[in-house]
Amino acid sequence: MKQIHIIGLGLLGGSFSLGLKKALTGLSVSGFDLNKGHLQEALSLGIIDRVSETVPADTDLVIVATPVDTISGIVSRLLDHIPPETLVVDFGSTKEHICSSVSGHAHRQNFLAAHPIAGTEYAGPSAAFPDLLKGKIMILCETDKTGPDLCKKAYRAFEALEMQIRIMGPHEHDNQLAFVSHLSHISSFMLGKTVLDKMEDDKHILNMAGSGFASTVRLAKSSPSMWTPIMKENKENILEALNGYIENLASFRDHLVNDQYEELSKNMKNANQIGQILNFKS
Amino acid sequence: MKQIHIIGLGLLGGSFSLGLKKALTGLSVSGFDLNKGHLQEALSLGIIDRVSETVPADTDLVIVATPVDTISGIVSRLLDHIPPETLVVDFGSTKEHICSSVSGHAHRQNFLAAHPIAGTEYAGPSAAFPDLLKGKIMILCETDKTGPDLCKKAYRAFEALEMQIRIMGPHEHDNQLAFVSHLSHISSFMLGKTVLDKMEDDKHILNMAGSGFASTVRLAKSSPSMWTPIMKENKENILEALNGYIENLASFRDHLVNDQYEELSKNMKNANQIGQILNFKS
Repeated sequence: MKQIHIIGLGLLGGSFSLGLKKALTGLSVSGFDLNKGHLQEALSLGIIDRVSETVPADTDLVIVATPVDTISGIVSRLLDHIPPETLVVDFGSTKEHICSSVSGHAHRQNFLAAHPIAGTEYAGPSAAFPDLLKGKIMILCETDKTGPDLCKKAYRAFEALEMQIRIMGPHEHDNQLAFVSHLSHISSFMLGKTVLDKMEDDKHILNMAGSGFASTVRLAKSSPSMWTPIMKENKENILEALNGYIENLASFRDHLVNDQYEELSKNMKNANQIGQILNFKS
Repeated sequence: MKQIHIIGLGLLGGSFSLGLKKALTGLSVSGFDLNKGHLQEALSLGIIDRVSETVPADTDLVIVATPVDTISGIVSRLLDHIPPETLVVDFGSTKEHICSSVSGHAHRQNFLAAHPIAGTEYAGPSAAFPDLLKGKIMILCETDKTGPDLCKKAYRAFEALEMQIRIMGPHEHDNQLAFVSHLSHISSFMLGKTVLDKMEDDKHILNMAGSGFASTVRLAKSSPSMWTPIMKENKENILEALNGYIENLASFRDHLVNDQYEELSKNMKNANQIGQILNFKS
């Protein structure tokens, strides 16, 4: 691994570069971002060694870490002129639309669909740090459609970051992520909105907030320019998750209206299981 | 401050004792809990020095840190036989019902309604630790109804823990807490339930969960035996908050169904403000 190129120098693209530079000696990183401020910042932070609008010769990996609704177009255009030894990897949070849009491409074997399960509520190159991806899960889809030697290049990079590789289908990925990631962002955004609405009457309300509120509302700080495209690309799965959530909340509300406290207690006791499962996992 | 007595030896009562013992030398702590296991545990963990079913003579403060629906009864019975130099303080998460139920008591001046804004998702004496309350907000209600010299005893204890004292009315307290604490517990419990429901079809779904999900679902580990009484005591305010939350989620869902991505983006951008406000506060 000598040369990588990163398109989209935000939290994820930036952290991938910093992590890989820390793990591998002699790696050269070029990159590009439509946001000129981010591009300069990435250069001055050492995320990239040089700016390049095109993929330099002898590039091993091209990482596409832009908002999900731009990835299909970028990947297709990259594949049109890809050298045989270069692999394009996308880091999008949804996978089904991207996989289907490149499925008929003549150079499909030069593409790998990936999703690192890592992030924070902050965005941009200044939020990037070398250990963001270290030890995290990396989901890969349709690895059988990627050339085996090209796939190995990606594995070498992910293993250098000690990532845990999981392989799953793109539809299964998008459906599961709607529940364990996209829904929790919506629940958090709307919790923030509900308290902000209340603040219009009562401007001191947040003085009373403790660490529990801070934890549940943390994701409401996330970037709309990243999340609006995810809503669009994963609309049907998100609607399934969101409808289930609204139904559960409405049922909780109805139990409360009707003073059914044993039902409420049973509901909360059941939900407690999530803690045991998450603790077991970690 | 020589002697305190704690009724309810869970996370809050236990942490108050451990913190005060760390801050003040020569403090003697007695206590009681209906749960015999917790009582023995509190004794062996040094939370209390001795078990006492009644309030010992020369007690400065009696702390009532039991589930909120038991507090009014316990406080009233304590006040019936309270020595003039002893102050009863409750740590309940709701205040309006408790304050109104003791308002006509002949010894009302021996009571102070308090709510420390501190907690974790864990419960019981083994979850207690000395610094839980350190530097946290302590809300006090109707301090003008407490005897001034008795009130000073409580202030000395809270100041020893470096707590930040805020005074507010009991109704205002319960309404605000419904939004910044009780609602976020419900949002978290029901997020947990929604994902657990989905797990019935797809048992590996939690393998994909990242730190964002863990953060939003953390409060779903909370104890139903603490939270069911809070739902009961603060029903009307919680319904106001929960209805607002369900409306916001339903409106988000409707925008998504109708492909109104600019509206979604605007909604998320507005919710981002919660981050600036919370950061500014901390």
